[in-house]
Amino acid sequence: MALIVQKFGGTSVATTERIKNVAKRIARWKKRGHDVIVVPSAMSGETNRLIALAKEISASPDPRELDVIASTGEQVTIGLLSMALQELGLKAKSYTGPQVKVLTDSVFTKARILKIDDALIRKDLDAGYVVVVAGFQGADAEGNITTLGRGGSDTSAVALAAALHADECQIYTDVDGVYTTDPRIVPEARKLDAITFEEMLEMASLGSKVLQIRAVEFAGKYKVKLRVLSSFEDEGEGTLITVEEEKTMEQPIISGIASNRDGAKLTIFGVPDKPSVAYQILGPIADANIDVDMIIQNVSQEGLTDFSFTVNRSDYAKAKAILEQSAAGLGARGVTGDNKTCKVSIIGVGMHSHPGIASQMFSALGAEGINIQMISTSEIKLSVVIEEKYLELAVRILHRTFGLDKE
Amino acid sequence: MALIVQKFGGTSVATTERIKNVAKRIARWKKRGHDVIVVPSAMSGETNRLIALAKEISASPDPRELDVIASTGEQVTIGLLSMALQELGLKAKSYTGPQVKVLTDSVFTKARILKIDDALIRKDLDAGYVVVVAGFQGADAEGNITTLGRGGSDTSAVALAAALHADECQIYTDVDGVYTTDPRIVPEARKLDAITFEEMLEMASLGSKVLQIRAVEFAGKYKVKLRVLSSFEDEGEGTLITVEEEKTMEQPIISGIASNRDGAKLTIFGVPDKPSVAYQILGPIADANIDVDMIIQNVSQEGLTDFSFTVNRSDYAKAKAILEQSAAGLGARGVTGDNKTCKVSIIGVGMHSHPGIASQMFSALGAEGINIQMISTSEIKLSVVIEEKYLELAVRILHRTFGLDKE
Repeated sequence: MALIVQKFGGTSVATTERIKNVAKRIARWKKRGHDVIVVPSAMSGETNRLIALAKEISASPDPRELDVIASTGEQVTIGLLSMALQELGLKAKSYTGPQVKVLTDSVFTKARILKIDDALIRKDLDAGYVVVVAGFQGADAEGNITTLGRGGSDTSAVALAAALHADECQIYTDVDGVYTTDPRIVPEARKLDAITFEEMLEMASLGSKVLQIRAVEFAGKYKVKLRVLSSFEDEGEGTLITVEEEKTMEQPIISGIASNRDGAKLTIFGVPDKPSVAYQILGPIADANIDVDMIIQNVSQEGLTDFSFTVNRSDYAKAKAILEQSAAGLGARGVTGDNKTCKVSIIGVGMHSHPGIASQMFSALGAEGINIQMISTSEIKLSVVIEEKYLELAVRILHRTFGLDKE
Repeated sequence: MALIVQKFGGTSVATTERIKNVAKRIARWKKRGHDVIVVPSAMSGETNRLIALAKEISASPDPRELDVIASTGEQVTIGLLSMALQELGLKAKSYTGPQVKVLTDSVFTKARILKIDDALIRKDLDAGYVVVVAGFQGADAEGNITTLGRGGSDTSAVALAAALHADECQIYTDVDGVYTTDPRIVPEARKLDAITFEEMLEMASLGSKVLQIRAVEFAGKYKVKLRVLSSFEDEGEGTLITVEEEKTMEQPIISGIASNRDGAKLTIFGVPDKPSVAYQILGPIADANIDVDMIIQNVSQEGLTDFSFTVNRSDYAKAKAILEQSAAGLGARGVTGDNKTCKVSIIGVGMHSHPGIASQMFSALGAEGINIQMISTSEIKLSVVIEEKYLELAVRILHRTFGLDKE
């Protein structure tokens, strides 16, 4: 008998019919003798509907009041799901975040969980209840309602699993696991049986939107065994996200290929190369709340250097205008940009012990005539910026090069 | 400077546009220097939508979980209304019932308020906030979310007014006050400037659906000055509901004419007249959860009596079947019924000191050929059961007879 936390996303509870199906799935686990805590999201579309109402009242709604409103979406689902479980003859009981209580800081609309009181849940589990806890929400020390930001229900589930020392935290979603790459790009993409937290973090931040990054970080920090499963298919083990040692021995060097289409590249060239130049270029960009991803500074020639960086495509125009102003102030020769770049990455914990991986990647791309514009590396990831039109080709080539299409 | 509690019903906050209008109205009171607590209902239709969702899951939803769901309607409105007040430059802050906390018993879906903690509200009022409290809801001693039942927001408002010793509790609704009778029946019906709690109770229970009965009882008990106003018209003093002494000296004897169309009458005749006969007839009716309104037992003749009572029309068929069974057991001669009766009442605190009122009523009805089938009286009310087809005529005649059409 184990203690399982099960999180169901908005599409899994989008209608009362689907909620009944989710209840049946939970009932099977309960009837096998497990203790179950369930964390549902709001019915899909509901959070957007509520935020749209708020926007009709105010262009920039007060965050405290926005949380009062937004938190009702999950509150409705917990009630409905508890009823559905009761209809199947189970004992079930719902709690909002403030009821539990899930204590957070007071940063409304993106609060962080500080502590979870396990007393009520523990008591109900002991009495045989399935406990249904609203995801995405909590209350601060003063009792104000807070929400954790988009995708926060994943974090709620992991935090509950950590607080109650659950044996596993299962995230039910509309995919049946984590894939070697996006199956829409590479039909041969395979579901991974296991992946490490670190790999998952890189996959997630690069656009494989299966799990919220913060939830993965949280799970890694508190060693919560995390599993991604399909909420629509009854069979399948999904993908286990775990610490490195628990992955099987036969682990491939590269676990997956991630890609991100929303890139844009900016270059300021002919900048006099002084020690503070990077700060003088990037400072005004950061002040405008623009996130910079990759940064490259060329080797200086005749006291002048070129400096390139990537931003999200939606920030391109704003960043370019700022950069042009900086260029004038710095006496640079000019600014160029390209808002049609993308990023493709290979990810794998085995990578750092295999120095040949990088050249294997570059040669595979070069053989297809794909020019690499920028490169960045980490212990478990190697990313390149290329022209967006090559994205699918690059992902397919790399998927095959590193043998991910083979069992 | 006064402390005012203002309650806005579902139609007053049905859209974000209307919520903005409500905010403007509140702002005018605040800017005159008053402290204001606002109690909004859910946006109209929202509570029904939520309950319909629950019914899709379960034919008889668990009341605890139903309250978790139903309470979200008001939670959305308090957030939206607070935002709308902030848009007008006011400080505003919302609280759910559990946050306040509005302590109730644990009778889910129809809980009663036991106590209201005024600390948070008092602090915010002192700091210049308009405090927006969700109506219809509270929490029991264990922290479970409870609701007060349909129309419970009126009760919430009155209870808050009592707990915070407010100078007035204003109920904004879609009528501009309490009328001498239904203006759809009598176009000359006049808005009353004042009415006593007792009169209002009789008016409400007889179908003048302006205020929830429980709220009026509560206001009477705690001496909360209650005022009914239109949420759509800016001018007008509405109707003040108050204790008898505060009504003006020139008070008419009769304050209003109420009518109720949903009646049905049943008669069992030729029943052997024994002491326990009333119980033997009405016991099985009560056991079937059928409310009996008026009861009349004729004077016994030759050891036999006739026994009549009225029920709600929707219970007529069920009550008749039960009565026919009882008639057989009691050896009665038979059962008759009429499911097309109605009740018309005259109401006024001055009535008990004017013994001529009853005969004035009967003669007015008799002059129009309206046969009175049953009569019941109380200190401040005189009701008659008549054929339904005479309802409008009777109301108009009585309205004129007691001078209610004149200023």
